[in-house]
Amino acid sequence: VSLAPRPPYLIYFADESDRIYAKTGLGIIEWRRELCIGQFRRTSDAVDGDLPDLGFDEAVAAGAKSLVIGTAPMGGIIPEHWNGDLAAAARAGLDIVSGMHVRLASLPGLAAAASQAGTRLVDLRNPPSQIPIATGRKRSGKRLLTVGTDCAIGKKYSALAIEREMRRRGWAADFRSTGQTGILISGSGIAIDSVVADFVAGAAELLSPDAADDHWDVVEGQGSLVHPSYSGISLALLHGTQPDALVLCHNPSRTHIAGLDPNDRNVIPPVEDVIELNLMLARRVNADARFVGICINTSKLPEAERAAVLRNYSARTGLPAVDPLIEGAEKIVDLIEMELL
Amino acid sequence: VSLAPRPPYLIYFADESDRIYAKTGLGIIEWRRELCIGQFRRTSDAVDGDLPDLGFDEAVAAGAKSLVIGTAPMGGIIPEHWNGDLAAAARAGLDIVSGMHVRLASLPGLAAAASQAGTRLVDLRNPPSQIPIATGRKRSGKRLLTVGTDCAIGKKYSALAIEREMRRRGWAADFRSTGQTGILISGSGIAIDSVVADFVAGAAELLSPDAADDHWDVVEGQGSLVHPSYSGISLALLHGTQPDALVLCHNPSRTHIAGLDPNDRNVIPPVEDVIELNLMLARRVNADARFVGICINTSKLPEAERAAVLRNYSARTGLPAVDPLIEGAEKIVDLIEMELL
Repeated sequence: VSLAPRPPYLIYFADESDRIYAKTGLGIIEWRRELCIGQFRRTSDAVDGDLPDLGFDEAVAAGAKSLVIGTAPMGGIIPEHWNGDLAAAARAGLDIVSGMHVRLASLPGLAAAASQAGTRLVDLRNPPSQIPIATGRKRSGKRLLTVGTDCAIGKKYSALAIEREMRRRGWAADFRSTGQTGILISGSGIAIDSVVADFVAGAAELLSPDAADDHWDVVEGQGSLVHPSYSGISLALLHGTQPDALVLCHNPSRTHIAGLDPNDRNVIPPVEDVIELNLMLARRVNADARFVGICINTSKLPEAERAAVLRNYSARTGLPAVDPLIEGAEKIVDLIEMELL
Repeated sequence: VSLAPRPPYLIYFADESDRIYAKTGLGIIEWRRELCIGQFRRTSDAVDGDLPDLGFDEAVAAGAKSLVIGTAPMGGIIPEHWNGDLAAAARAGLDIVSGMHVRLASLPGLAAAASQAGTRLVDLRNPPSQIPIATGRKRSGKRLLTVGTDCAIGKKYSALAIEREMRRRGWAADFRSTGQTGILISGSGIAIDSVVADFVAGAAELLSPDAADDHWDVVEGQGSLVHPSYSGISLALLHGTQPDALVLCHNPSRTHIAGLDPNDRNVIPPVEDVIELNLMLARRVNADARFVGICINTSKLPEAERAAVLRNYSARTGLPAVDPLIEGAEKIVDLIEMELL
């Protein structure tokens, strides 16, 4: 089983200047600022998470327990020129926490530095070793899964906003993290993209076990059924979660599937098609599966157009449409309260 | 990268009495009998592959290079009481070849025995370590993928029969193995269910690289889009392969999804529905994807009913329907020759 990360954190932004690739660090700051003591930036144009800039010794003196790698370069590789920083942070007394595929212990000198200093190397993408094959058994309790028209489109934040709104109403609800940032935010979970393929649906079953009839697991989706690089993970998560409720996440400013060649084959399909595809597959494992909302990322839209865009998506789908980072998930949870309880 | 298995083989059936679980050993015997020198059975009621029963020393004397574990108990666990046999076989001078998830080196005493004897432990489910994330790029050459209404329903044998028929006609065609038995039969491949989830579609891309325009990769499918334990693997393989041609494998004697509780939720859907689902998803990555045949396992049917059942499936789907183990894949390759070349 993965080691649990120890807060408080020093967030390592290195020399990453693109906020998209810094989403791990920025996500922790957004949702659990109280766990973050400072940030470390190698260069002045690196992403700024609006935390104090601290050196490793300063961070330790301020109480930091872990350096968290807050950026994820494409491909999950740790650049060689970070090695010196990571070893220095370990020697200063910080655990090193990584959400990348590459194992920290494989970096030259890092295991020795951590061992000498008595600190830990925490690989969040090191899933439990004894995950069973999925059984497909129907479990008690309620489940909501966020799905997307693309990867990196707000599935984690939407799930967090929905959990927050459910808890505000006094419901029993748990955010179930399936990725490294979510694990840092919630303190537990399984990085589902690192599980051996045979066991991914089984991992989804483990993440949302039997629960009280009125309990909601709010499961962080991954990838998209229409993203050819990650569709298998999305389907395993859909079939393992057996969701009662689905929420679609979409970004109207994005025209093509992320990370692929922006040609005609990789155009993001209309939200109606993605909803239909998810429902067709979800109903294989839960005949009552239904959509309860659509989360739209409106951050790139002019303020004056926001409301009209949301109304339009709501009219097209017959679902409440919200931007959860601006207005929260109240309308979605209203619908669940009216129709699914 | 996995070590390649060294033939000839001694097939280890242990005390497995159910031919279903002995499909690895029986499959090698069916398709590459010339690679098999003998079999080792612990008990008289163990599966009989119609090979000479040989002890480990006898097998080595007869030229065997590897003991191949020919049965796969549910869950991929190697029973403790096999350990003595495996160590004895290694000491006798045989490589030990396993297609199970558990690593051979983790079995007590086996690594030491193999090391002393100078033999190898070959884990077929040890995929290459540097698989890239899928790019979704369109590749040159033609691809056929076998898909199923369930797991363990003939996708490997159908692909082998199609490769055999294509080669008989002088076409450039390669069977691309995605499972341990296929790797033992063809000598290469990637056990796709053992790949870390993020890289499964990428592994499918690696398996069927750019090729001459008239070359066919005949890719062994895995699982089924309607089997909730394995559907993610099936979809990753579908999206990574980008098939031009699909062949559905079905067993009319089977009513419920294998390995799951045989309740109403786990009824195998009609072949028409499974075809439609595969097409809808395949066309995301290849607009011209189409079915070219249906392979029916008629082994449980009375001889007198066989032809009528095949005619019925052909009429329902508008596709050539064959039992590839009885009559080969001629009708399917005829259709490809007429309509896809």
